[in-house]
Amino acid sequence: MKEIRHIGILTGGGDCPGLNAVIRAISKTAINYGVEVIGFIDGFKGLVENRYIQLDLRAVSGISHTGGTILGTSNRDNPFQFFTISEGTPQHSDESDRAVANMEHLGLDGLVVIGGDGSLNIADRFAEKGVPIVGVPKTIDNDLSATDVTFGFNTAVNTASEALDRLHTTAESHHRVMVLEVMGRYAGWIALHAGISGGADVILIPEIPYNMDAVISKITQRYRQGKNFSIIVVAEGAIPEDGEMVIRNLVATSHDPIRLGGIGQKVAEDIGNRLQNIEVRVTVLGHLQRGGSPIPYDRILSTRYGVAAVDAFMAGQFGTMVSLRGDMIAAVPIKEAIKEIRRVKPESDLVRAARAVGISFGDKY
Amino acid sequence: MKEIRHIGILTGGGDCPGLNAVIRAISKTAINYGVEVIGFIDGFKGLVENRYIQLDLRAVSGISHTGGTILGTSNRDNPFQFFTISEGTPQHSDESDRAVANMEHLGLDGLVVIGGDGSLNIADRFAEKGVPIVGVPKTIDNDLSATDVTFGFNTAVNTASEALDRLHTTAESHHRVMVLEVMGRYAGWIALHAGISGGADVILIPEIPYNMDAVISKITQRYRQGKNFSIIVVAEGAIPEDGEMVIRNLVATSHDPIRLGGIGQKVAEDIGNRLQNIEVRVTVLGHLQRGGSPIPYDRILSTRYGVAAVDAFMAGQFGTMVSLRGDMIAAVPIKEAIKEIRRVKPESDLVRAARAVGISFGDKY
Amino acid sequence: MKEIRHIGILTGGGDCPGLNAVIRAISKTAINYGVEVIGFIDGFKGLVENRYIQLDLRAVSGISHTGGTILGTSNRDNPFQFFTISEGTPQHSDESDRAVANMEHLGLDGLVVIGGDGSLNIADRFAEKGVPIVGVPKTIDNDLSATDVTFGFNTAVNTASEALDRLHTTAESHHRVMVLEVMGRYAGWIALHAGISGGADVILIPEIPYNMDAVISKITQRYRQGKNFSIIVVAEGAIPEDGEMVIRNLVATSHDPIRLGGIGQKVAEDIGNRLQNIEVRVTVLGHLQRGGSPIPYDRILSTRYGVAAVDAFMAGQFGTMVSLRGDMIAAVPIKEAIKEIRRVKPESDLVRAARAVGISFGDKY
Amino acid sequence: MKEIRHIGILTGGGDCPGLNAVIRAISKTAINYGVEVIGFIDGFKGLVENRYIQLDLRAVSGISHTGGTILGTSNRDNPFQFFTISEGTPQHSDESDRAVANMEHLGLDGLVVIGGDGSLNIADRFAEKGVPIVGVPKTIDNDLSATDVTFGFNTAVNTASEALDRLHTTAESHHRVMVLEVMGRYAGWIALHAGISGGADVILIPEIPYNMDAVISKITQRYRQGKNFSIIVVAEGAIPEDGEMVIRNLVATSHDPIRLGGIGQKVAEDIGNRLQNIEVRVTVLGHLQRGGSPIPYDRILSTRYGVAAVDAFMAGQFGTMVSLRGDMIAAVPIKEAIKEIRRVKPESDLVRAARAVGISFGDKY
Repeated sequence: MKEIRHIGILTGGGDCPGLNAVIRAISKTAINYGVEVIGFIDGFKGLVENRYIQLDLRAVSGISHTGGTILGTSNRDNPFQFFTISEGTPQHSDESDRAVANMEHLGLDGLVVIGGDGSLNIADRFAEKGVPIVGVPKTIDNDLSATDVTFGFNTAVNTASEALDRLHTTAESHHRVMVLEVMGRYAGWIALHAGISGGADVILIPEIPYNMDAVISKITQRYRQGKNFSIIVVAEGAIPEDGEMVIRNLVATSHDPIRLGGIGQKVAEDIGNRLQNIEVRVTVLGHLQRGGSPIPYDRILSTRYGVAAVDAFMAGQFGTMVSLRGDMIAAVPIKEAIKEIRRVKPESDLVRAARAVGISFGDKY
Repeated sequence: MKEIRHIGILTGGGDCPGLNAVIRAISKTAINYGVEVIGFIDGFKGLVENRYIQLDLRAVSGISHTGGTILGTSNRDNPFQFFTISEGTPQHSDESDRAVANMEHLGLDGLVVIGGDGSLNIADRFAEKGVPIVGVPKTIDNDLSATDVTFGFNTAVNTASEALDRLHTTAESHHRVMVLEVMGRYAGWIALHAGISGGADVILIPEIPYNMDAVISKITQRYRQGKNFSIIVVAEGAIPEDGEMVIRNLVATSHDPIRLGGIGQKVAEDIGNRLQNIEVRVTVLGHLQRGGSPIPYDRILSTRYGVAAVDAFMAGQFGTMVSLRGDMIAAVPIKEAIKEIRRVKPESDLVRAARAVGISFGDKY
Repeated sequence: MKEIRHIGILTGGGDCPGLNAVIRAISKTAINYGVEVIGFIDGFKGLVENRYIQLDLRAVSGISHTGGTILGTSNRDNPFQFFTISEGTPQHSDESDRAVANMEHLGLDGLVVIGGDGSLNIADRFAEKGVPIVGVPKTIDNDLSATDVTFGFNTAVNTASEALDRLHTTAESHHRVMVLEVMGRYAGWIALHAGISGGADVILIPEIPYNMDAVISKITQRYRQGKNFSIIVVAEGAIPEDGEMVIRNLVATSHDPIRLGGIGQKVAEDIGNRLQNIEVRVTVLGHLQRGGSPIPYDRILSTRYGVAAVDAFMAGQFGTMVSLRGDMIAAVPIKEAIKEIRRVKPESDLVRAARAVGISFGDKY
Repeated sequence: MKEIRHIGILTGGGDCPGLNAVIRAISKTAINYGVEVIGFIDGFKGLVENRYIQLDLRAVSGISHTGGTILGTSNRDNPFQFFTISEGTPQHSDESDRAVANMEHLGLDGLVVIGGDGSLNIADRFAEKGVPIVGVPKTIDNDLSATDVTFGFNTAVNTASEALDRLHTTAESHHRVMVLEVMGRYAGWIALHAGISGGADVILIPEIPYNMDAVISKITQRYRQGKNFSIIVVAEGAIPEDGEMVIRNLVATSHDPIRLGGIGQKVAEDIGNRLQNIEVRVTVLGHLQRGGSPIPYDRILSTRYGVAAVDAFMAGQFGTMVSLRGDMIAAVPIKEAIKEIRRVKPESDLVRAARAVGISFGDKY
């Protein structure tokens, strides 16, 4: 096996608390192995455009508790369909060979890609082209099947749970129904965790289509028990039993640049229409969930992932992604990791626990 | 002067961090004076409907750090135009005499009203009817002219500032313009304080009409300096120089029950239209600013207000409101306090400081 | 099997964030099963003295985010050696039969014990006497072998990590060595996690005896690299390679009622003596680690434990303790759970990750 | 008047949250005036040794929310009695002329000194030597007479108040007396504010000598009312009525490099000796109060001070210090500012409010 002397890293896709802790851990570990590290700027875009910085000890010092990524990131950066604007016309071209040429020219022995579904798919295609690749899973939604937890997820749960604590006091003082829309397009992990932690009464997630009758029934049942307020957490991908078509075009809140008002607003309006004596309010948490300093749990997980990624690289485990299984870090094939989304199981232990403490999922349970 | 043995208190209008600390301080101080205290439920509504609880030491123990109000509050509770629904038809009637009769029947020697503009106006009308009244000012917007600071305000600034810290990392990683809409219908205090604290680049407030050219110019100037992101804080009452009419119907965000998307969304859309290569995102902080545990500053201020309200009562200073002037608490006539709104002065020291550290107010300064 | 209608619960040993969330989850789940719950006051002490409260839905409403235990707890409460003072003389007697008689008299069908090592040992002895028992593991130190994580632990890590963030800025501004002593008498879990999260340079834990030469060498190496400050986290049970005897009487900091100054102070003094040009400061975190609101992670884990404990009870799995294994909750025999302490493995993945990012454990690694 | 083109700044004395926000505001404001700024490293020490960095926009970008000081600071840096070690022997010499020569050589038109009592005294002596000087007051203890509030103080109050929130739950669960020692050698501001905010039962401050009988009486009175726990906040300079001599050598906790256990420990021991059935615990907050990110209040105040310092400089108001009076920033003579310490007035409004909500100051009130 060729000796490894020089690697590149990049961060792709959306912001996620813990990215800098991963960058720091990779750099420090690599330098310990005697390996030099450069970081491409703005994800795969910098790889194509050959923009990068040196990641020495000074560059990564004191960054593990900071949010964001010192390398920058980009959403439109697929080298296989590279987006440019030429004479006012947007166009796409395959610049993957240029990316490979850049890496060769820089004398890189491989690439560590920190990214979600999209970025890991691109990484896999580079692996097929013969580039030594190791992936680090990044999705704030926690919906990657090859790992128990992804970094950033618990920080997002914290943010959402703090928001619920705040909404709780207003709900109670004003006898209102407060609706909070959180992230989770395809999986309801943030809604489920934050809802249990923040004392929600109803949690609506994509995995359990909801019925508005059941939601209303929960709220009115609480009123009968003398609890004249309710807290409802809605994942942005939540869907009514009978309404997938109607809703689909609303399911984009935090991804749409500017327009607010997705499923959270719809749920609030429906409740308001059905219970006219009750005040309903909606809050969309949006970007607040992606930013800020990672909580200790995520700093530690990010550090472990970063170290493990370099270990996997040095052991020649190319085409793999690091993942957490129980309390162990392991390397799994990228292909397997990106095969399917990990969703909340309606019959799982955690959903069962939520139901046991009185939370409704808006179904006919 | 009649001896004071028994007083009532109530909390009116919107939720505000520190209400419970005021309730506790009033109750403890009164009990020390040998005065009994009852609390009407749901603001003036409970006064009309004769719903109340006893506020003894046990009832107010351990509540000073909690958000919300243990007494509940109401937005539609004016006894002089009391709202009811009779046989499906909403109607208003003057129930102020019933309220006075309730107080007499309970043997109350007066009433402490904790509330904002609206509630203090009602309090003043009861004072005119001969009810001994002392007011405690409550507005999260900090826009009351008779006092330097209102309780709850600094907690709201904290919440908004934390949100800006979170948005900062995402703005920087993605090279985006992030817009945050905060409360402040008539006065930009929260936007101004949070903007300075959270490192905003542009702050738009009702007191300084903005010009979109100036906003765009600030953003592009930053790009030229190599800072490819910007943070913009918008008070919900912010208005463009030329656009009061257009905007007016949008200026209601956090007061409208359900619909999102006011001036913050408009600003984001305008920037997006003008700077098409730049990603713009908007977040509406909304109800998150009203709830949650008061920060120490507000717990202390609330405690001082509560104690001073009882002191004023015992001293027979009826028809007054407690207020903070420098480091002193004083009692001022309610009538004076509610005469006009305290707004940010565009030439003030604080606005000058913001400009000095490079913040633009979207004007041609 | 006898039908279950009525159970008792108690919390024993030291305060731990999450206790109230467990109490709430147990009560709500049991009530869902149609089972009544009472809570004994002050741990086993209340069981002997027949002091208890009814835990209905109202009693456990809104407590899951609060610290402490609404039931109270006690450290000197072993019914098998019950401590009393008779005519000024302290004495111990076996009051376990009285405890059993109380349970019978109350018509209890069994007891859920939420506690650590000590309380679970007592629970096991009651199980041997035929009392249907289910345990819930509680140790802030995370040192229980039958479970991956205990509730409260991650909140303590958070508190310690925030303290390190604070000490960091002072260390850097003053070019100091800052020493922080955290909990962990027999296991260094808090020190290890908080140290990685908080960017410590040296972590001293009971599992890896330290050598002062190695500590000094790490500090001076940093100075040579231009980093003129260092952060050292010391578990209260940390021991020097050659010094077990000397230290033993110091290893009691947070358990000793009043005297401060254990191993943290010793480490600081030793460094101060060896590096006379460098300022050294020590902070003992102490009780701050046990109190306060549980972070979301712990609220969720506590809820799951509480629900699972009742499920185990209803399934007749007496003599067991609920535990977390990977992502699953399981019931394991109490006897097994309390057999041995779970300590940090010096060769584990996590210690390896810490070393990789440059942390020294004060050994000759 | 000579045109101002070039100024130096330095931070002296102990760490304080907000220093970086002041540095940033000074630099940005000066650059706006067309003035260049350099920052001396490690306080006056860097001035004597001619160590400094350029403070351009890049250098001060993104630092306003960070703790510590990017310039470093020093405690032993008086140029008029400059400390050095020559051939192993510590010695002091007057290096003030060397400092002035350095400034002249660098072409500086003056110096902004950010510091407390000690640093402002030195600044004043340089002013007497003809150096144009403006001071910015810095004391976390809030004990400067010329200003209403100093930056950093409210952050320290926050830290102490959060600590009290944590201790509260443990005190209540275990029925303990918890003692927290906070900073405040000569003035009890932190203890007073944190005590009111954190719900303390007893607050002991230097301005009101305490009587142990009164402390004991408050604790036992609470027990009689069914409140079997108490929270006691002790400023490090608190003194018993009859015990100044005994205590003096203990009053040094957070200033002594390493030894713990000052007046907080003494108070805990005295209570423990008098109330033998009650568990007492002590925590010393120490350095945790000085570090960490400034809260928004302090970020804003620091920014205002920094801007005002440059404004004063440009207006030729040399020999002055910026200060906050009500809501206005003003420049006052340094000499006046450092004449006497601002202490808590036992008859003030704030102490009265604390007593009204049931707090004892350990006196015979």
